[in-house]
Amino acid sequence: MTAATTTPVSPFAPARFPDLPSVEGVRLATARAEVRYRGREDVMLAAIDEGAVIAGTFTRSSTRAAPVLDCEAKLAAHAAAPADGAGFAFLVNSGNANAFTGRLGERSVAALTEAVAGRLAIPPAHVFTASTGVIGEPLPHERIVAVLDDLAAALAPDPWEKAARAIMTTDTYPKGATASVAIGGRRVTINGIAKGSGMIAPDMATMLVFLFTDAAIPQRLLQDMVSRLTERTFNCITVDGDTSTSDTLLAAATGKAGHAPLATGSAEAAAFEAALEEVMRDLAHQVVKDGEGASKFVTVQVTGAVDRTDAKKVALSIANSPLVKTAIYGEDPNWGRVVMAVGKSGARADRDRLTIRFGDILVAERGWVAEGYREEEAARYMKRREITIGVDLGLGTGEATVWTCDLTRRYIEINADYRS
Amino acid sequence: MTAATTTPVSPFAPARFPDLPSVEGVRLATARAEVRYRGREDVMLAAIDEGAVIAGTFTRSSTRAAPVLDCEAKLAAHAAAPADGAGFAFLVNSGNANAFTGRLGERSVAALTEAVAGRLAIPPAHVFTASTGVIGEPLPHERIVAVLDDLAAALAPDPWEKAARAIMTTDTYPKGATASVAIGGRRVTINGIAKGSGMIAPDMATMLVFLFTDAAIPQRLLQDMVSRLTERTFNCITVDGDTSTSDTLLAAATGKAGHAPLATGSAEAAAFEAALEEVMRDLAHQVVKDGEGASKFVTVQVTGAVDRTDAKKVALSIANSPLVKTAIYGEDPNWGRVVMAVGKSGARADRDRLTIRFGDILVAERGWVAEGYREEEAARYMKRREITIGVDLGLGTGEATVWTCDLTRRYIEINADYRS
Repeated sequence: MTAATTTPVSPFAPARFPDLPSVEGVRLATARAEVRYRGREDVMLAAIDEGAVIAGTFTRSSTRAAPVLDCEAKLAAHAAAPADGAGFAFLVNSGNANAFTGRLGERSVAALTEAVAGRLAIPPAHVFTASTGVIGEPLPHERIVAVLDDLAAALAPDPWEKAARAIMTTDTYPKGATASVAIGGRRVTINGIAKGSGMIAPDMATMLVFLFTDAAIPQRLLQDMVSRLTERTFNCITVDGDTSTSDTLLAAATGKAGHAPLATGSAEAAAFEAALEEVMRDLAHQVVKDGEGASKFVTVQVTGAVDRTDAKKVALSIANSPLVKTAIYGEDPNWGRVVMAVGKSGARADRDRLTIRFGDILVAERGWVAEGYREEEAARYMKRREITIGVDLGLGTGEATVWTCDLTRRYIEINADYRS
Repeated sequence: MTAATTTPVSPFAPARFPDLPSVEGVRLATARAEVRYRGREDVMLAAIDEGAVIAGTFTRSSTRAAPVLDCEAKLAAHAAAPADGAGFAFLVNSGNANAFTGRLGERSVAALTEAVAGRLAIPPAHVFTASTGVIGEPLPHERIVAVLDDLAAALAPDPWEKAARAIMTTDTYPKGATASVAIGGRRVTINGIAKGSGMIAPDMATMLVFLFTDAAIPQRLLQDMVSRLTERTFNCITVDGDTSTSDTLLAAATGKAGHAPLATGSAEAAAFEAALEEVMRDLAHQVVKDGEGASKFVTVQVTGAVDRTDAKKVALSIANSPLVKTAIYGEDPNWGRVVMAVGKSGARADRDRLTIRFGDILVAERGWVAEGYREEEAARYMKRREITIGVDLGLGTGEATVWTCDLTRRYIEINADYRS
């Protein structure tokens, strides 16, 4: 059941978890509820002081899990009336996704949110939950309720690594990132933790992301930033093109840093957004680098498309192509497969304007292999652990960058052998 | 270079090539041109008597190869003026796809079609070519021109298996199918050969299909049938979701069977179309069953969608999902991954109306695991070599069936290790 312990750690795992400072107004706790895993913590509670605003983005799957549907409804209500003078909570468990569990799933969410609300003296509408793990099995929510008193008593400003570990499923390392920015003479901190071992891992192990900042920022502005940056970070990574029914990103801004609230369009808002993007991109890269069986980290940069939509279509077509991904695993500079992936993407492309690069090496241009291209040189480049594939479509100014990993024997082993 | 000889034969390979009768008005020949492979035949010429009509369907890739662009232009001209009293030819080589070869590619096609036209005393506009194999390398067309005299001299009505073998790349067995139907007291024959080892094989080994019949049928009706049936057969198979830049289907109807020409909407046309569908579906299944590394043949049947477009979206989303395909390889009845693939498809779906079956086993209904579902029973079913996944969306009457294979360690080995 504890796949995480039997899987070798990703070659990209950082030497240690980064130092995350505390974020005023945020306290965390973790516990062992034994939802499914034994011998490890599997529940995380974050308590956020009153006066905070919450933003979020969620999977677009049409078979979204019960906690996702509940978060979406609560977030809509919060966005309509952000300030009502009560704290918030995020409750997260690993081991069971509470997905495809029918009406039982909704009842589990209601039971959990009411129990947390009672312990923290906040409205149930302020409790957001996320669950990740196996699907189709009822969530034994009573096991989580049983540890809520312990969780509430243990809340503290610093257990970031423990929180990142408690939400892991098939992840081989805990994921955290932090950035800070000076605003109005104050130091504003942004912390994030995430889990995900691929765009989707076995049994929809799911991507979950939780961001915490002490910035003072209107709810609508935070939501705008989070939506815009999700599109450029988490929605630009792919391991296998599969999409979880539970993907959840929640952000809380406590406003405790003491600066004047960020205003739309201001230099301060731009500085904050840049720092937020840094944290989100860092976490997104960590998820790809823990992609199941990954041995290479691949950046796909598409330029010269008619527009950004087309650029992203081409980039994702390359990044999701099993033939491109297996060639990278085989360290083969097989640019023909890149041409194929451009062609099948559905984006506007013209064979005779296409330029392809591996790193700085010009591989193909104007519909044919580049003069002076030497395959030995490209083959040497492909031996690197981090690879960049550049494609210029030569049609316009649309650009997009996506990140992915290779498709390896180990991916097949993990996904064919897990669960049963 | 001869990957085909080092790959174990697919477990689905038929014991022997089927008996294909001759088709009056069609003669075939094969030869060794050593375009790339050594020690095997790699060129096929089909000569079709005057009075025939030609139809075809092609890849929709925006980076289509030179022979595809040439075939499309010639077919459009033929459709506009089908009857001009001259025979036709199909010239096909394996080993080199003449794709992404810039202006050189067009010159190779022109050189080949003019050479064939000269040998057979037909217009160059009546010569259709197809090429499959590595891309980005100029086609050494002079090697093919050098064997054209031998090919023309060897034309005969019966070398179907040799023709099917000559067009193979990574295929592990030659693919042929035949059907016959009585029309107006005459026996009408439909023969087909195909190559393809996946929707796309390494280096875009490509799917090529050639159909020959002695039916008398107007060009437009043949084209309508071929387009409609391609959508239900070859466009409903997938190995890895990748799409070749060279996929080509060409059909020739010689009219020699001696019946009155088929009329749109007639019972005779319907009978012919049913027989044509049988041949095309048979060949499509053979391609999937030779999918790279395939150990299971999988039928995905989707019903109850809002319309056929949505049904096909869901079916292809399931059939292309790496997580579904690896679960099938692992013989794991992991229906949660089917729910995931439905959810990410973009088609309209309602979790609480979804029904999932493995074969006849009811797995999930109304948003949750079915009462009486026993995983042991489903696990036993998954051990079969041919698996059917049934999904009913419970929303409408849209239906689609697609065919695929599993994603195996062998797929990774073939595609990571090939070429370099």
